[in-house]
Amino acid sequence: MRTSLCDTLGTTYPIVAFTPSEHVAAAVSRAGGLGVLGCVRFNDADELDRVLEWMDANTDGKPYGVDIVMPSKVPTEGSMTDLEKHIPDEHRAFVERTLNELGVPDLPSTTDDAGVLGWLHSVARAHVEVALKHPISLIANALGSPPNDVIEQAHDRGVKVAALAGKAEHAVSHVDNGVDIVVAQGYEAGGHTGEVASMVLLPEVAERVGDRAPVLAAGGIGSGKQVAAALALGASGVWMGSYWLTTSEYLETMSTSATMQQALLGASSSDTVRTRIFSGKPARLLKTRWTEAWSAPDAPDPLPMPLQNLLVSEAHQRIAAADDPSVVAMPVGQIVGKMNEVRPVADVMADLVREFDEALSRLDKTR
Amino acid sequence: MRTSLCDTLGTTYPIVAFTPSEHVAAAVSRAGGLGVLGCVRFNDADELDRVLEWMDANTDGKPYGVDIVMPSKVPTEGSMTDLEKHIPDEHRAFVERTLNELGVPDLPSTTDDAGVLGWLHSVARAHVEVALKHPISLIANALGSPPNDVIEQAHDRGVKVAALAGKAEHAVSHVDNGVDIVVAQGYEAGGHTGEVASMVLLPEVAERVGDRAPVLAAGGIGSGKQVAAALALGASGVWMGSYWLTTSEYLETMSTSATMQQALLGASSSDTVRTRIFSGKPARLLKTRWTEAWSAPDAPDPLPMPLQNLLVSEAHQRIAAADDPSVVAMPVGQIVGKMNEVRPVADVMADLVREFDEALSRLDKTR
Repeated sequence: MRTSLCDTLGTTYPIVAFTPSEHVAAAVSRAGGLGVLGCVRFNDADELDRVLEWMDANTDGKPYGVDIVMPSKVPTEGSMTDLEKHIPDEHRAFVERTLNELGVPDLPSTTDDAGVLGWLHSVARAHVEVALKHPISLIANALGSPPNDVIEQAHDRGVKVAALAGKAEHAVSHVDNGVDIVVAQGYEAGGHTGEVASMVLLPEVAERVGDRAPVLAAGGIGSGKQVAAALALGASGVWMGSYWLTTSEYLETMSTSATMQQALLGASSSDTVRTRIFSGKPARLLKTRWTEAWSAPDAPDPLPMPLQNLLVSEAHQRIAAADDPSVVAMPVGQIVGKMNEVRPVADVMADLVREFDEALSRLDKTR
Repeated sequence: MRTSLCDTLGTTYPIVAFTPSEHVAAAVSRAGGLGVLGCVRFNDADELDRVLEWMDANTDGKPYGVDIVMPSKVPTEGSMTDLEKHIPDEHRAFVERTLNELGVPDLPSTTDDAGVLGWLHSVARAHVEVALKHPISLIANALGSPPNDVIEQAHDRGVKVAALAGKAEHAVSHVDNGVDIVVAQGYEAGGHTGEVASMVLLPEVAERVGDRAPVLAAGGIGSGKQVAAALALGASGVWMGSYWLTTSEYLETMSTSATMQQALLGASSSDTVRTRIFSGKPARLLKTRWTEAWSAPDAPDPLPMPLQNLLVSEAHQRIAAADDPSVVAMPVGQIVGKMNEVRPVADVMADLVREFDEALSRLDKTR
C-alpha cells in the first residue's frame, strides 16, 4: 500500500489519521501513517504547545501534522460577550428544557465552562503560531483554504497545507489558493460534511484537480477494502477520523470518553444524522436522544457558526459529564457501524494494510 | 472485467443496466451486460408483452431481465376511485397552484390521464405473469423481496430474482426469503434509496450476505473507476440506472425526453435531492423548480405510497409535455454530474471496461 503521497508526507502508508487525541496521533505516526492532531479542543495555545512537545517526544521522529478550524476570510469577531448577545433566549430555553427532559444534570459549579473556543479565528491563529514552532509536516484546515498568509508561513517552513472539500469546485479553488493536498470529504463522513457521497465525489475531485495536488479520500474509510476503493476512484490516500474514536489509545487522552465509546460501539451505519446543531454548519453526528430532540417539531433552527457552538458548548460539557450513552453529542461518520470493538491503533493499521492487499488480490481475479 | 456473476447471468461483463427503455436494455445486453427493463411504465400488461417480444427479437439471444415494483406483503388495495378519495384537497390545490406558478400548461383534454399504475400490486403481478412467458434471466424488485410465490414461479422457470436493499439487515432478509442476487443501493443512487452511502453500505452488505448471494453495487456508478471500487468493496458487479438516461438509445424509446436529457446534461453532482414527492417513499430526483416548490415552507408533506404517485401522476404528464428543462420530475443519482453528453450505449460500455482496466493498472503500482 504505497502511493506518491508517501513520498510527499514521508510516511510508509498513505493513511492520514485526524484525531483530537495525541496518543492516537502519535501511535498512527509510529505505525507508518500520518497522525494529525485536531487543535479545536485547545482553548489555551500553551496547552497545545505542551501537547506538541509530548508528540515530538513520542513519535520516534516520524512525521505528524495538526488540524485547525479556520475560515479563509477573517470574520468580524467580537469578544465572547459580544457574541453571546446574539444568541436568542428561545434557543437558550430550548437547550435548558431539553437537557432537563433528557435527565442531564447541571455541571458542578466549580467547572470551567468556557466551552470550546477553537472555532474562533483568533484561537485558530494561535494554534497555527504554536504548531509552526514544532517539526510538523502538515497543517490541515477543516473549513477549506486557510488565509493566504497562513499558507505562506507554512510553506516557508516546508510544511504542507491540506484543505477539506465537499465539492469539486471547492477543491479546485483550494489548489488555486496554494493548498498542497485536497481532502475530498464525502457525505458519509463524520463532522462537517457535504452532500455528495465519496463514490461520486472522489473521481470528480481527482479529475478536476489532476496532477496539481494529491487527493485524500475522507468519509467511510474503516477497512483496507475502502482504501483500495478510494485509490481506484483516483485518491492518493485516505483521511480517517471516526475510526480512531474506538481505539484504546483514544481513552488515554480522553479519560472520560468511555461512555461515548460505548455509544459508538453499539451504533449501526444508520445511526448517524447530518445536522447543524453541533456547530452551525452541517455535520454528521451519532444519532442519540440529544440529536433527536433537535429534530422535533418544537425545536428551533440551529444558529449560524460560531453562535451555535457557543449555545451548545455548556450542554456538550453537561452531556459528557452525564455518562449516559443514549445522550451523546459526538461527530462520527457512517463507518461507525464497523466500529464494534476497542482496539489498539497498531492493530487497526495492520488490518488496513492486510485487507488492502486482499482486496487487490480479489481484483486480480477479475482480469 | 469478469466475476462469478457473469457465469450466473450468462453475460460477458458484471454490468446490469436498469432502464425503462427497451432500446437501452437491448443495447446493453448486446454489448455484453444485462439489460433490465423497468416495467412500471406499462399500465397495460399487453403492451409489456409486445415490448418483450421486441426485446426477444433484438437482443441477439443475449440474456436480459425485467424490473418490477412490488412490496413483499400484498397491500389492501382498493380500486383507483377508492384510492383517490384518500388524497386531501389541500394536496390537490398545492399541486395545481404550483404547476400554474411554474408555468406548466394544462394537458390537452384528449390526453389519457390514467397516470402510472405500475406502482399498484395488481399491475406489478400482471407484469410478472407476462414477463415469465418470455426468456428472461432475471426479475428484479425495486421494493425488496417480492412475495414468496413470485420467487417460486421465477425459480421454477430458472429465472433469478434480485432485490434492492439499502441496509445490510434488509439484504440478509432478502436472501432468507429466497432472493438470489442482492442489489445494495447507496444514498447516492437515483430513485428510491436509503441513507447509507455505497462506500459504507457495500462492504457491510457483502460481509453480512457472504457466499449466500452475489451483491450488485447500485448508486454512483458511471465509470470503470467506480466499477473497480465497487468490486474492491466486495460487490460482484454493478447495477447502473441513471447513467443510461443520456444515451442516444434512450430517446428512441422516449421520444419526448429530449428536454429531460437537456436538464440532466447541465446538472452537477450537487443538483439532486432525496425526497418523498415522487412516490411517497424517499427517492433521489433531479433538483428543479418542481422539487424546490415542494421544499418551500408552505408545501404540504408528501402522502404515503401509492397515494403520492396518484397525486402527482397528472402533474408528471403536464411537466413532461411542458418541455421546460427547469421544471422536470425525474429520478436520477448523484452520478448525473458525469452525464455531460449523449452517447450510444456501446460507447458507454466500452469506456466502463477500459477505465476499469486502467484503474486496476493504477492499483498495481501501489504494491
